[in-house]
Amino acid sequence: MTLMTPDQLERSLRDIGARRYHNLHPFHHMLHRGQCSKGQVQAWALNRYYYQAMIPLKDASLIGRCDDADIRREWRHRLADHDGENAGDGGIARWLKLTDGLGLDRDYVTSTRGLLPGTRFAVEAYVHFVRDRTLLEAIASSLTELFSPVIINERVAGMLANYAFVTKETLAYFDKRPPQAQRDSDFALDYVKRHATTLETQQAVLAALEFKCSVLWAMLDALYYSYVAPKHIPPGAFDPDKASAS
Amino acid sequence: MTLMTPDQLERSLRDIGARRYHNLHPFHHMLHRGQCSKGQVQAWALNRYYYQAMIPLKDASLIGRCDDADIRREWRHRLADHDGENAGDGGIARWLKLTDGLGLDRDYVTSTRGLLPGTRFAVEAYVHFVRDRTLLEAIASSLTELFSPVIINERVAGMLANYAFVTKETLAYFDKRPPQAQRDSDFALDYVKRHATTLETQQAVLAALEFKCSVLWAMLDALYYSYVAPKHIPPGAFDPDKASAS
Repeated sequence: MTLMTPDQLERSLRDIGARRYHNLHPFHHMLHRGQCSKGQVQAWALNRYYYQAMIPLKDASLIGRCDDADIRREWRHRLADHDGENAGDGGIARWLKLTDGLGLDRDYVTSTRGLLPGTRFAVEAYVHFVRDRTLLEAIASSLTELFSPVIINERVAGMLANYAFVTKETLAYFDKRPPQAQRDSDFALDYVKRHATTLETQQAVLAALEFKCSVLWAMLDALYYSYVAPKHIPPGAFDPDKASAS
Repeated sequence: MTLMTPDQLERSLRDIGARRYHNLHPFHHMLHRGQCSKGQVQAWALNRYYYQAMIPLKDASLIGRCDDADIRREWRHRLADHDGENAGDGGIARWLKLTDGLGLDRDYVTSTRGLLPGTRFAVEAYVHFVRDRTLLEAIASSLTELFSPVIINERVAGMLANYAFVTKETLAYFDKRPPQAQRDSDFALDYVKRHATTLETQQAVLAALEFKCSVLWAMLDALYYSYVAPKHIPPGAFDPDKASAS
Protein backbone atom coordinates (compact mmCIF):
# COMPACT_ATOMS: atom_id res chain seq x y z
CA MET A 1 0.00 0.00 0.00
CA THR A 2 1.35 3.39 -0.98
CA LEU A 3 0.02 6.90 -0.63
CA MET A 4 -2.26 7.79 -3.54
CA THR A 5 -2.83 11.08 -5.32
CA PRO A 6 -6.41 12.35 -5.04
CA ASP A 7 -7.16 11.07 -8.55
CA GLN A 8 -5.69 7.65 -7.80
CA LEU A 9 -7.86 7.53 -4.69
CA GLU A 10 -10.92 8.33 -6.80
CA ARG A 11 -10.02 5.51 -9.19
CA SER A 12 -9.69 3.09 -6.25
CA LEU A 13 -13.08 4.18 -4.92
CA ARG A 14 -14.70 3.73 -8.34
CA ASP A 15 -13.04 0.34 -8.64
CA ILE A 16 -14.76 -0.77 -5.42
CA GLY A 17 -18.08 0.16 -7.00
CA ALA A 18 -17.22 -1.80 -10.13
CA ARG A 19 -16.60 -4.92 -8.04
CA ARG A 20 -18.96 -4.63 -5.07
CA TYR A 21 -21.95 -2.40 -5.86
CA HIS A 22 -25.29 -4.17 -5.63
CA ASN A 23 -26.06 -3.77 -9.34
CA LEU A 24 -23.98 -6.98 -9.57
CA HIS A 25 -26.31 -8.90 -7.24
CA PRO A 26 -28.59 -11.58 -8.74
CA PHE A 27 -31.65 -10.05 -7.07
CA HIS A 28 -31.06 -6.76 -8.90
CA HIS A 29 -30.79 -8.63 -12.20
CA MET A 30 -34.06 -10.45 -11.53
CA LEU A 31 -35.79 -7.25 -10.49
CA HIS A 32 -35.01 -5.15 -13.53
CA ARG A 33 -35.31 -8.01 -16.02
CA GLY A 34 -38.91 -8.65 -15.01
CA GLN A 35 -38.12 -12.04 -13.44
CA CYS A 36 -39.63 -11.17 -10.05
CA SER A 37 -43.15 -12.08 -9.02
CA LYS A 38 -45.32 -9.29 -7.66
CA GLY A 39 -44.75 -10.70 -4.16
CA GLN A 40 -40.99 -10.46 -4.66
CA VAL A 41 -41.25 -6.85 -5.85
CA GLN A 42 -43.45 -6.11 -2.81
CA ALA A 43 -40.88 -7.69 -0.49
CA TRP A 44 -38.11 -5.60 -2.08
CA ALA A 45 -40.08 -2.34 -1.74
CA LEU A 46 -41.18 -3.09 1.82
CA ASN A 47 -37.66 -3.93 2.97
CA ARG A 48 -36.02 -1.07 1.09
CA TYR A 49 -38.51 1.29 2.77
CA TYR A 50 -36.60 0.85 6.04
CA TYR A 51 -33.39 1.96 4.39
CA GLN A 52 -35.11 5.09 3.04
CA ALA A 53 -36.70 5.80 6.40
CA MET A 54 -33.39 5.64 8.29
CA ILE A 55 -31.37 7.80 5.88
CA PRO A 56 -32.35 11.14 7.50
CA LEU A 57 -31.37 9.77 10.92
CA LYS A 58 -27.90 8.87 9.72
CA ASP A 59 -27.56 12.22 7.94
CA ALA A 60 -28.69 14.14 11.01
CA SER A 61 -26.21 12.29 13.21
CA LEU A 62 -23.46 13.23 10.74
CA ILE A 63 -24.49 16.91 10.82
CA GLY A 64 -24.76 16.69 14.60
CA ARG A 65 -21.05 16.07 15.05
CA CYS A 66 -19.70 18.32 12.32
CA ASP A 67 -18.18 21.61 13.44
CA ASP A 68 -18.00 23.16 9.96
CA ALA A 69 -21.13 25.16 9.07
CA ASP A 70 -20.42 24.92 5.34
CA ILE A 71 -20.54 21.15 5.49
CA ARG A 72 -23.59 21.16 7.77
CA ARG A 73 -25.48 23.42 5.33
CA GLU A 74 -24.48 21.28 2.36
CA TRP A 75 -25.42 18.06 4.14
CA ARG A 76 -28.76 19.55 5.21
CA HIS A 77 -29.95 19.28 1.58
CA ARG A 78 -30.11 15.55 2.19
CA LEU A 79 -32.53 15.95 5.06
CA ALA A 80 -34.76 18.13 2.89
CA ASP A 81 -34.53 15.67 -0.01
CA HIS A 82 -35.73 12.79 2.14
CA ASP A 83 -38.12 14.46 4.57
CA GLY A 84 -39.46 17.20 2.26
CA GLU A 85 -40.78 20.58 3.35
CA ASN A 86 -44.19 19.26 4.40
CA ALA A 87 -45.82 15.95 5.21
CA GLY A 88 -46.26 14.06 1.96
CA ASP A 89 -43.18 15.62 0.30
CA GLY A 90 -39.73 14.16 -0.05
CA GLY A 91 -38.09 10.86 -0.83
CA ILE A 92 -39.64 8.79 1.95
CA ALA A 93 -43.16 9.90 0.99
CA ARG A 94 -42.39 9.08 -2.65
CA TRP A 95 -41.17 5.65 -1.60
CA LEU A 96 -44.50 5.07 0.11
CA LYS A 97 -46.24 5.89 -3.20
CA LEU A 98 -44.31 2.96 -4.60
CA THR A 99 -45.40 0.61 -1.80
CA ASP A 100 -48.98 1.94 -2.16
CA GLY A 101 -48.84 1.28 -5.89
CA LEU A 102 -47.72 -2.28 -5.20
CA GLY A 103 -50.79 -2.83 -3.02
CA LEU A 104 -49.07 -2.87 0.36
CA ASP A 105 -50.86 -1.45 3.37
CA ARG A 106 -49.10 1.77 4.35
CA ASP A 107 -49.43 1.22 8.10
CA TYR A 108 -47.98 -2.26 7.72
CA VAL A 109 -45.02 -0.91 5.75
CA THR A 110 -44.24 1.95 8.13
CA SER A 111 -44.64 -0.29 11.20
CA THR A 112 -41.68 -2.36 9.84
CA ARG A 113 -43.37 -5.41 11.40
CA GLY A 114 -42.80 -7.45 8.27
CA LEU A 115 -39.17 -6.43 7.78
CA LEU A 116 -36.54 -9.13 7.34
CA PRO A 117 -34.16 -9.17 10.33
CA GLY A 118 -31.30 -9.16 7.82
CA THR A 119 -32.55 -5.85 6.42
CA ARG A 120 -32.95 -4.33 9.86
CA PHE A 121 -29.46 -5.34 10.96
CA ALA A 122 -27.81 -4.12 7.74
CA VAL A 123 -29.55 -0.72 7.81
CA GLU A 124 -28.81 -0.22 11.49
CA ALA A 125 -25.18 -1.17 10.91
CA TYR A 126 -25.04 1.78 8.49
CA VAL A 127 -26.65 4.17 11.00
CA HIS A 128 -24.21 3.04 13.71
CA PHE A 129 -21.23 3.31 11.37
CA VAL A 130 -22.04 6.94 10.54
CA ARG A 131 -22.61 7.72 14.21
CA ASP A 132 -19.47 6.01 15.53
CA ARG A 133 -16.71 6.44 12.93
CA THR A 134 -14.74 9.56 11.97
CA LEU A 135 -16.50 12.27 9.97
CA LEU A 136 -14.28 11.38 7.01
CA GLU A 137 -15.35 7.72 7.11
CA ALA A 138 -18.99 8.74 7.57
CA ILE A 139 -18.82 10.95 4.48
CA ALA A 140 -16.96 8.27 2.50
CA SER A 141 -19.65 5.71 3.32
CA SER A 142 -22.15 7.82 1.34
CA LEU A 143 -20.13 7.38 -1.84
CA THR A 144 -22.22 4.49 -3.14
CA GLU A 145 -24.21 7.36 -4.63
CA LEU A 146 -21.45 7.68 -7.20
CA PHE A 147 -22.85 4.51 -8.72
CA SER A 148 -26.57 4.96 -8.10
CA PRO A 149 -27.59 6.89 -11.26
CA VAL A 150 -26.71 3.80 -13.31
CA ILE A 151 -28.63 1.34 -11.16
CA ILE A 152 -31.64 3.65 -10.98
CA ASN A 153 -31.81 3.98 -14.76
CA GLU A 154 -31.57 0.20 -15.21
CA ARG A 155 -34.18 -0.36 -12.52
CA VAL A 156 -36.73 2.17 -13.77
CA ALA A 157 -36.48 1.22 -17.45
CA GLY A 158 -36.52 -2.49 -16.63
CA MET A 159 -39.39 -2.32 -14.17
CA LEU A 160 -41.59 -0.15 -16.41
CA ALA A 161 -40.99 -2.44 -19.38
CA ASN A 162 -41.54 -5.68 -17.50
CA TYR A 163 -44.18 -5.30 -14.82
CA ALA A 164 -47.80 -4.46 -15.62
CA PHE A 165 -48.31 -3.53 -11.95
CA VAL A 166 -45.60 -0.82 -12.01
CA THR A 167 -46.39 2.64 -13.42
CA LYS A 168 -44.36 5.78 -13.98
CA GLU A 169 -46.26 7.41 -11.09
CA THR A 170 -45.39 4.69 -8.61
CA LEU A 171 -41.72 5.04 -9.59
CA ALA A 172 -41.74 8.83 -9.02
CA TYR A 173 -39.13 8.35 -6.28
CA PHE A 174 -36.50 7.53 -8.86
CA ASP A 175 -37.15 10.62 -11.06
CA LYS A 176 -35.69 12.88 -8.42
CA ARG A 177 -32.82 10.77 -7.19
CA PRO A 178 -30.22 10.86 -10.00
CA PRO A 179 -29.59 14.66 -9.92
CA GLN A 180 -29.66 14.64 -6.08
CA ALA A 181 -27.24 11.71 -5.96
CA GLN A 182 -24.98 13.41 -8.49
CA ARG A 183 -24.80 16.66 -6.51
CA ASP A 184 -24.36 14.84 -3.20
CA SER A 185 -21.70 12.45 -4.41
CA ASP A 186 -19.76 15.26 -6.14
CA PHE A 187 -19.57 17.04 -2.80
CA ALA A 188 -18.66 13.92 -0.82
CA LEU A 189 -16.06 12.78 -3.34
CA ASP A 190 -14.41 16.21 -3.35
CA TYR A 191 -14.35 16.21 0.47
CA VAL A 192 -12.82 12.75 0.63
CA LYS A 193 -10.18 13.56 -2.01
CA ARG A 194 -9.14 16.69 -0.13
CA HIS A 195 -9.10 15.15 3.37
CA ALA A 196 -7.86 11.58 2.90
CA THR A 197 -4.23 12.52 2.46
CA THR A 198 -2.45 9.92 4.58
CA LEU A 199 -2.04 6.18 4.05
CA GLU A 200 -4.20 5.53 7.09
CA THR A 201 -7.09 7.80 6.11
CA GLN A 202 -7.02 6.58 2.51
CA GLN A 203 -7.32 2.98 3.70
CA ALA A 204 -10.11 4.06 6.04
CA VAL A 205 -12.18 5.69 3.27
CA LEU A 206 -11.76 2.68 0.99
CA ALA A 207 -12.87 0.40 3.84
CA ALA A 208 -15.84 2.70 4.53
CA LEU A 209 -17.04 2.39 0.93
CA GLU A 210 -16.55 -1.40 1.00
CA PHE A 211 -18.56 -1.50 4.21
CA LYS A 212 -21.40 0.48 2.64
CA CYS A 213 -21.41 -1.76 -0.45
CA SER A 214 -21.73 -4.74 1.89
CA VAL A 215 -24.77 -3.13 3.56
CA LEU A 216 -26.61 -2.81 0.24
CA TRP A 217 -25.45 -6.27 -0.83
CA ALA A 218 -26.58 -7.96 2.40
CA MET A 219 -30.05 -6.41 1.97
CA LEU A 220 -30.38 -8.16 -1.41
CA ASP A 221 -28.92 -11.40 0.01
CA ALA A 222 -31.66 -11.43 2.63
CA LEU A 223 -34.35 -10.82 0.00
CA TYR A 224 -32.99 -13.53 -2.27
CA TYR A 225 -32.70 -16.09 0.49
CA SER A 226 -36.19 -15.39 1.82
CA TYR A 227 -38.22 -14.79 -1.34
CA VAL A 228 -36.38 -16.41 -4.28
CA ALA A 229 -34.44 -19.49 -3.16
CA PRO A 230 -34.61 -21.43 -0.95
CA LYS A 231 -37.56 -19.12 -0.21
CA HIS A 232 -37.32 -19.64 3.49
CA ILE A 233 -39.08 -16.65 5.04
CA PRO A 234 -37.89 -15.99 8.63
CA PRO A 235 -40.53 -16.25 11.39
CA GLY A 236 -42.74 -13.16 11.45
CA ALA A 237 -41.48 -11.52 8.23
CA PHE A 238 -43.69 -10.40 5.32
CA ASP A 239 -45.23 -13.32 3.48
CA PRO A 240 -46.87 -12.33 0.18
CA ASP A 241 -49.06 -15.45 0.31
CA LYS A 242 -50.61 -14.65 3.66
CA ALA A 243 -53.38 -12.16 4.33
CA SER A 244 -51.74 -11.28 7.64
CA ALA A 245 -49.10 -9.45 5.63
CA SER A 246 -51.26 -6.38 5.24
CA MET B 1 -52.79 -8.40 25.73
CA THR B 2 -53.26 -8.82 29.45
CA LEU B 3 -50.91 -8.78 32.38
CA MET B 4 -49.36 -12.20 32.94
CA THR B 5 -48.34 -13.95 36.13
CA PRO B 6 -44.60 -14.72 36.31
CA ASP B 7 -45.28 -18.32 35.31
CA GLN B 8 -47.45 -17.28 32.36
CA LEU B 9 -44.65 -14.96 31.27
CA GLU B 10 -42.21 -17.87 31.44
CA ARG B 11 -44.52 -19.97 29.28
CA SER B 12 -44.73 -17.15 26.72
CA LEU B 13 -40.95 -16.86 26.66
CA ARG B 14 -40.55 -20.61 26.19
CA ASP B 15 -43.16 -20.51 23.45
CA ILE B 16 -41.04 -17.99 21.52
CA GLY B 17 -38.18 -20.47 21.70
CA ALA B 18 -40.40 -23.26 20.43
CA ARG B 19 -41.33 -21.19 17.38
CA ARG B 20 -38.27 -19.05 16.63
CA TYR B 21 -35.10 -20.63 18.03
CA HIS B 22 -32.50 -21.47 15.38
CA ASN B 23 -32.70 -25.21 16.00
CA LEU B 24 -35.64 -24.92 13.54
CA HIS B 25 -33.43 -23.46 10.79
CA PRO B 26 -32.58 -25.66 7.77
CA PHE B 27 -28.86 -24.94 8.18
CA HIS B 28 -28.91 -26.39 11.69
CA HIS B 29 -30.63 -29.52 10.40
CA MET B 30 -28.01 -29.93 7.67
CA LEU B 31 -25.17 -29.33 10.11
CA HIS B 32 -26.09 -31.93 12.68
CA ARG B 33 -27.36 -34.51 10.17
CA GLY B 34 -24.00 -34.65 8.44
CA GLN B 35 -25.30 -33.02 5.27
CA CYS B 36 -22.73 -30.21 5.26
CA SER B 37 -19.50 -30.32 3.29
CA LYS B 38 -16.30 -29.59 5.17
CA GLY B 39 -16.28 -26.12 3.56
CA GLN B 40 -19.77 -25.45 4.89
CA VAL B 41 -18.77 -26.54 8.41
CA GLN B 42 -15.71 -24.29 8.14
CA ALA B 43 -17.91 -21.36 7.07
CA TRP B 44 -20.22 -21.98 10.02
CA ALA B 45 -17.36 -22.13 12.54
CA LEU B 46 -15.61 -19.09 11.08
CA ASN B 47 -18.76 -16.96 11.13
CA ARG B 48 -19.90 -18.16 14.53
CA TYR B 49 -16.46 -17.22 15.89
CA TYR B 50 -17.43 -13.56 15.60
CA TYR B 51 -20.50 -14.13 17.76
CA GLN B 52 -18.35 -15.82 20.42
CA ALA B 53 -15.74 -13.07 20.25
CA MET B 54 -18.30 -10.29 20.79
CA ILE B 55 -20.15 -11.90 23.72
CA PRO B 56 -17.80 -10.54 26.43
CA LEU B 57 -18.16 -7.04 24.96
CA LYS B 58 -21.94 -7.17 25.23
CA ASP B 59 -21.74 -8.65 28.73
CA ALA B 60 -19.26 -6.00 29.88
CA SER B 61 -21.49 -3.23 28.53
CA LEU B 62 -24.39 -4.72 30.51
CA ILE B 63 -22.33 -4.84 33.70
CA GLY B 64 -21.11 -1.33 32.95
CA ARG B 65 -24.54 0.19 33.36
CA CYS B 66 -25.86 -1.92 36.19
CA ASP B 67 -25.94 -0.29 39.62
CA ASP B 68 -26.60 -3.50 41.57
CA ALA B 69 -23.39 -5.21 42.72
CA ASP B 70 -25.14 -8.58 43.14
CA ILE B 71 -26.13 -8.60 39.48
CA ARG B 72 -22.72 -7.33 38.39
CA ARG B 73 -20.98 -10.14 40.29
CA GLU B 74 -23.36 -12.74 38.89
CA TRP B 75 -22.98 -11.44 35.35
CA ARG B 76 -19.18 -11.38 35.71
CA HIS B 77 -19.19 -15.20 35.55
CA ARG B 78 -20.00 -14.79 31.89
CA LEU B 79 -16.87 -12.76 31.25
CA ALA B 80 -14.77 -15.42 32.98
CA ASP B 81 -16.53 -18.20 31.05
CA HIS B 82 -15.70 -16.61 27.70
CA ASP B 83 -12.35 -14.94 28.32
CA GLY B 84 -10.94 -17.45 30.86
CA GLU B 85 -8.40 -16.68 33.57
CA ASN B 86 -5.40 -16.74 31.25
CA ALA B 87 -4.69 -16.57 27.53
CA GLY B 88 -5.74 -19.88 26.02
CA ASP B 89 -8.54 -20.48 28.56
CA GLY B 90 -12.23 -19.84 28.16
CA GLY B 91 -14.94 -20.21 25.57
CA ILE B 92 -13.39 -18.08 22.83
CA ALA B 93 -10.11 -20.02 23.03
CA ARG B 94 -12.07 -23.29 22.89
CA TRP B 95 -13.92 -22.05 19.84
CA LEU B 96 -10.57 -21.43 18.15
CA LYS B 97 -9.65 -25.07 18.84
CA LEU B 98 -12.69 -25.93 16.75
CA THR B 99 -11.63 -23.67 13.87
CA ASP B 100 -8.05 -25.05 14.19
CA GLY B 101 -9.42 -28.59 14.04
CA LEU B 102 -11.31 -27.71 10.89
CA GLY B 103 -8.08 -26.57 9.23
CA LEU B 104 -8.74 -22.83 9.27
CA ASP B 105 -5.85 -20.45 9.77
CA ARG B 106 -6.22 -18.87 13.18
CA ASP B 107 -5.04 -15.41 12.14
CA TYR B 108 -7.52 -15.45 9.27
CA VAL B 109 -10.37 -16.41 11.62
CA THR B 110 -9.57 -13.80 14.27
CA SER B 111 -9.02 -11.06 11.66
CA THR B 112 -12.72 -11.56 10.68
CA ARG B 113 -11.67 -10.67 7.11
CA GLY B 114 -13.67 -13.56 5.72
CA LEU B 115 -16.80 -12.92 7.76
CA LEU B 116 -20.13 -12.61 5.96
CA PRO B 117 -21.50 -9.06 6.23
CA GLY B 118 -24.80 -10.62 7.33
CA THR B 119 -23.04 -12.22 10.30
CA ARG B 120 -21.28 -9.00 11.23
CA PHE B 121 -24.47 -6.95 11.11
CA ALA B 122 -26.49 -9.47 13.12
CA VAL B 123 -23.86 -9.82 15.86
CA GLU B 124 -23.37 -6.07 16.11
CA ALA B 125 -27.13 -5.56 16.28
CA TYR B 126 -27.04 -7.72 19.41
CA VAL B 127 -24.18 -5.73 20.94
CA HIS B 128 -25.99 -2.46 20.22
CA PHE B 129 -29.26 -3.78 21.58
CA VAL B 130 -27.66 -4.70 24.91
CA ARG B 131 -25.89 -1.35 25.06
CA ASP B 132 -28.91 0.80 24.16
CA ARG B 133 -32.01 -0.84 25.65
CA THR B 134 -33.15 -1.07 29.27
CA LEU B 135 -31.28 -3.41 31.62
CA LEU B 136 -34.38 -5.60 31.74
CA GLU B 137 -34.48 -5.95 27.94
CA ALA B 138 -30.72 -6.56 27.84
CA ILE B 139 -31.07 -9.39 30.37
CA ALA B 140 -34.11 -10.80 28.57
CA SER B 141 -32.21 -10.91 25.28
CA SER B 142 -29.84 -13.47 26.85
CA LEU B 143 -32.70 -15.93 27.37
CA THR B 144 -32.01 -17.88 24.19
CA GLU B 145 -29.73 -19.81 26.56
CA LEU B 146 -32.87 -21.42 27.95
CA PHE B 147 -32.96 -23.38 24.72
CA SER B 148 -29.26 -23.90 24.03
CA PRO B 149 -28.62 -27.15 25.95
CA VAL B 150 -30.94 -28.95 23.52
CA ILE B 151 -29.31 -27.55 20.37
CA ILE B 152 -25.82 -28.22 21.72
CA ASN B 153 -26.60 -31.85 22.44
CA GLU B 154 -28.08 -32.32 18.96
CA ARG B 155 -25.14 -30.58 17.38
CA VAL B 156 -22.39 -32.45 19.22
CA ALA B 157 -23.91 -35.90 18.83
CA GLY B 158 -24.76 -35.26 15.19
CA MET B 159 -21.40 -33.77 14.27
CA LEU B 160 -19.37 -36.52 15.99
CA ALA B 161 -21.43 -39.21 14.32
CA ASN B 162 -21.39 -37.70 10.86
CA TYR B 163 -18.11 -35.94 10.15
CA ALA B 164 -14.77 -37.74 10.04
CA PHE B 165 -13.01 -34.37 10.35
CA VAL B 166 -14.68 -33.54 13.70
CA THR B 167 -13.33 -35.00 16.95
CA LYS B 168 -14.36 -34.83 20.57
CA GLU B 169 -11.35 -32.57 21.24
CA THR B 170 -12.30 -30.03 18.59
CA LEU B 171 -15.79 -29.85 20.07
CA ALA B 172 -14.48 -29.19 23.61
CA TYR B 173 -16.27 -25.82 23.55
CA PHE B 174 -19.61 -27.52 23.81
CA ASP B 175 -18.70 -29.70 26.84
CA LYS B 176 -18.61 -26.67 29.09
CA ARG B 177 -21.54 -24.73 27.73
CA PRO B 178 -24.67 -26.62 28.88
CA PRO B 179 -24.07 -26.21 32.66
CA GLN B 180 -22.97 -22.58 32.15
CA ALA B 181 -26.02 -21.83 30.03
CA GLN B 182 -28.28 -23.52 32.58
CA ARG B 183 -26.92 -21.47 35.48
CA ASP B 184 -26.95 -18.23 33.47
CA SER B 185 -30.43 -18.68 32.08
CA ASP B 186 -31.83 -19.66 35.51
CA PHE B 187 -30.57 -16.35 36.86
CA ALA B 188 -31.78 -14.30 33.90
CA LEU B 189 -35.20 -15.96 33.85
CA ASP B 190 -35.66 -15.37 37.55
CA TYR B 191 -34.67 -11.71 37.12
CA VAL B 192 -37.08 -11.21 34.22
CA LYS B 193 -39.97 -12.91 36.05
CA ARG B 194 -39.45 -10.70 39.09
CA HIS B 195 -38.99 -7.41 37.22
CA ALA B 196 -41.32 -7.60 34.21
CA THR B 197 -44.48 -6.91 36.17
CA THR B 198 -46.30 -4.44 33.92
CA LEU B 199 -47.94 -4.95 30.56
CA GLU B 200 -45.35 -2.71 28.96
CA THR B 201 -42.29 -4.43 30.44
CA GLN B 202 -43.71 -7.89 29.73
CA GLN B 203 -44.19 -6.96 26.07
CA ALA B 204 -40.66 -5.53 26.03
CA VAL B 205 -39.04 -8.72 27.34
CA LEU B 206 -40.97 -10.88 24.87
CA ALA B 207 -39.85 -8.57 22.05
CA ALA B 208 -36.25 -8.73 23.33
CA LEU B 209 -36.26 -12.52 23.13
CA GLU B 210 -37.82 -12.44 19.65
CA PHE B 211 -35.13 -9.97 18.61
CA LYS B 212 -32.39 -12.26 19.90
CA CYS B 213 -33.89 -15.28 18.14
CA SER B 214 -33.85 -13.24 14.92
CA VAL B 215 -30.12 -12.50 15.41
CA LEU B 216 -29.27 -16.22 15.60
CA TRP B 217 -31.66 -17.00 12.74
CA ALA B 218 -30.24 -14.31 10.45
CA MET B 219 -26.73 -15.71 11.01
CA LEU B 220 -27.88 -19.09 9.64
CA ASP B 221 -29.81 -17.41 6.80
CA ALA B 222 -26.59 -15.73 5.69
CA LEU B 223 -24.67 -19.03 5.83
CA TYR B 224 -27.35 -20.87 3.90
CA TYR B 225 -27.63 -18.23 1.21
CA SER B 226 -23.87 -18.00 0.75
CA TYR B 227 -22.73 -21.59 1.14
CA VAL B 228 -25.68 -23.90 0.46
CA ALA B 229 -28.08 -22.36 -2.06
CA PRO B 230 -27.90 -20.36 -4.22
CA LYS B 231 -24.29 -20.47 -2.94
CA HIS B 232 -23.64 -16.88 -3.83
CA ILE B 233 -20.70 -15.82 -1.65
CA PRO B 234 -20.60 -12.04 -1.11
CA PRO B 235 -17.51 -10.22 -2.43
CA GLY B 236 -14.55 -10.70 -0.09
CA ALA B 237 -16.09 -13.34 2.19
CA PHE B 238 -14.56 -16.75 3.00
CA ASP B 239 -14.53 -19.06 -0.01
CA PRO B 240 -13.64 -22.65 0.89
CA ASP B 241 -12.55 -23.29 -2.70
CA LYS B 242 -9.97 -20.52 -2.77
CA ALA B 243 -6.50 -20.66 -1.25
CA SER B 244 -6.83 -16.97 -0.35
CA ALA B 245 -9.25 -18.04 2.36
CA SER B 246 -6.43 -18.93 4.71
